Amino acid sequence: MDAYKKAGVDINAGYKLVDDIKNLSKNSDLGSFGGLFPLALGTYKNPVLVSGTDGVGTKLLIAIKANLHKTIGIDLVAMCVNDVLAQGAKPLFFLDYLGVGHLDNEKAKDILTGVVEGVSQAQSKLVGGETAEMPDMYTHGHYDLAGFAVGIADQDKLLSSDNLHEGDILLGLASNGLHSNGFSLVRDILFKQNSYSLNDTLSGCDLDLKHELLRPTKIYVKSVLPLVEQGKIASIAHITGGGLPENVARILPEGLSAEFNYGSWKVPAIMKNLQEIGHLSFDDMKHTFNLGLGMVVAVHPEDADDIQSQLTAAGETVSRVGKLISGDKQVIIRKDQQ
Amino acid sequence: MDAYKKAGVDINAGYKLVDDIKNLSKNSDLGSFGGLFPLALGTYKNPVLVSGTDGVGTKLLIAIKANLHKTIGIDLVAMCVNDVLAQGAKPLFFLDYLGVGHLDNEKAKDILTGVVEGVSQAQSKLVGGETAEMPDMYTHGHYDLAGFAVGIADQDKLLSSDNLHEGDILLGLASNGLHSNGFSLVRDILFKQNSYSLNDTLSGCDLDLKHELLRPTKIYVKSVLPLVEQGKIASIAHITGGGLPENVARILPEGLSAEFNYGSWKVPAIMKNLQEIGHLSFDDMKHTFNLGLGMVVAVHPEDADDIQSQLTAAGETVSRVGKLISGDKQVIIRKDQQ
Repeated sequence: MDAYKKAGVDINAGYKLVDDIKNLSKNSDLGSFGGLFPLALGTYKNPVLVSGTDGVGTKLLIAIKANLHKTIGIDLVAMCVNDVLAQGAKPLFFLDYLGVGHLDNEKAKDILTGVVEGVSQAQSKLVGGETAEMPDMYTHGHYDLAGFAVGIADQDKLLSSDNLHEGDILLGLASNGLHSNGFSLVRDILFKQNSYSLNDTLSGCDLDLKHELLRPTKIYVKSVLPLVEQGKIASIAHITGGGLPENVARILPEGLSAEFNYGSWKVPAIMKNLQEIGHLSFDDMKHTFNLGLGMVVAVHPEDADDIQSQLTAAGETVSRVGKLISGDKQVIIRKDQQ
Repeated sequence: MDAYKKAGVDINAGYKLVDDIKNLSKNSDLGSFGGLFPLALGTYKNPVLVSGTDGVGTKLLIAIKANLHKTIGIDLVAMCVNDVLAQGAKPLFFLDYLGVGHLDNEKAKDILTGVVEGVSQAQSKLVGGETAEMPDMYTHGHYDLAGFAVGIADQDKLLSSDNLHEGDILLGLASNGLHSNGFSLVRDILFKQNSYSLNDTLSGCDLDLKHELLRPTKIYVKSVLPLVEQGKIASIAHITGGGLPENVARILPEGLSAEFNYGSWKVPAIMKNLQEIGHLSFDDMKHTFNLGLGMVVAVHPEDADDIQSQLTAAGETVSRVGKLISGDKQVIIRKDQQ
């Protein structure tokens, strides 16, 4: 195996990493050809598997620049399982793909520590993964991460736009900052147009830039899934790339629009800083960032108080951010109160 | 959205691509938060989901260098679904992740054309995917691909090393050349240590290097799955990175070794060329390349003729390549006949 190692691929380093992940995840089956997940189907009449794949975009370049790799795996899991949750499904298991130029076991272990933490937050199971060493593909310590989550729901409990009616209330669940979208713009504003350092702390922010930018994406499974299972949630939008306009539009049926009252929730200080420093229009802001809402939950008016208090009790910061009105699938953000 | 586009991310190009993939895959549900797959469980008593994730390694760099992107997606699907098949499971659905520096819709469409073709060969369904545009992460037209496959099997029909006995016959299924492993060594030998051109044709090869190296990985689902479902296959090893030694060792139980008779199957001309040009030891060869066998199927002696003829009838090139002997999980490749 000497020739292959000289060509840049260290198979033994890969085996060592598999052992590390087995220990971290406490899943000793990792490393076989395929990951196994027994299905307990007692409670499902017409089970549907709901799967999602995603990456964390150029937030990775912040983790690389800051040399802080322990939370980016949480972002990876969050991006996938929140999508599965948004369909009304319970995330069951997760797999990760890590592409690297040269395998650095310590760094890979940090990355996978985050994946394992994310999977735990999602009350899910890590059943497999792939670490691919690709000399000449990735440079400068770069790596890419892709995640894959599979969940399950009963066919008639999948959330759908048919559940929505005029007057339904939109509850916004606070994000933990930027989450994992808009980072090409963030990097452009802070590090290309300007010369901020990762050690700087921007106005109104609690953390310096490296920690502020790397705040891990919230995983909403633990707080939201029980309410989905109670049948009390009409629909969910996971706010990712494209912001409120694109992601809320995806859940709207014909004949309804969503109206948000800007000012009814807190916009994170980091976003206000980015708007000011980058001279961004509100249009740019709303299409790129989550504006402080990581997930928007639509509920019927009679359930709104109950759901809001249950979500609050589960640790979420919840605001009543808008409602559904008659319209043509528009997402309107009213700034009257601003 | 102008600011984000100026920072290198074109959301509208992404939407166009989703439409293209919907058309290619004929799955109009693509583009929602999560991919849906209804489970038909009639025939499963204790269903187990079997999932696999993989990439295609630096074979990508050959596709990029040759500017031929239409088959690399077949490799991606093959790497994942053959792993699922090797557990005795039927692949159900697939998702892909494509990371790019700058989204080139034509190239992405070529790549996804291969994914759709691979999914079709695997008698599976494409239920989702992610195309991530990451400026500054990937350079020189580089991109990475990760795939995720999920299959299903009944718990008691999963292939396991418990099925294997001394005297079981190893049937080797011909690979389609290099498949998707060893490419860092291939590139080192051909393009770094030496200065071959992708237009050169090596001794004994039918195709020039760009087409020889890019031969898509065989997908064995259509020919092998029916035999798995008949209960006639004892175990399967998918021969990928690590070659016969590592991959066959993974299926061996305590007390058994595998003995291969080198010379009982055809080693592809491209590998012989690489051995000669790269001055590779046989040890390097066997740990890096599949040596011409993409999948090794273990069967009980009384089933060997039947299985061999069924696989041949299904279009596979099948050789009786060895057997299981008493031993300590060693993979022995006897070269007496060489």
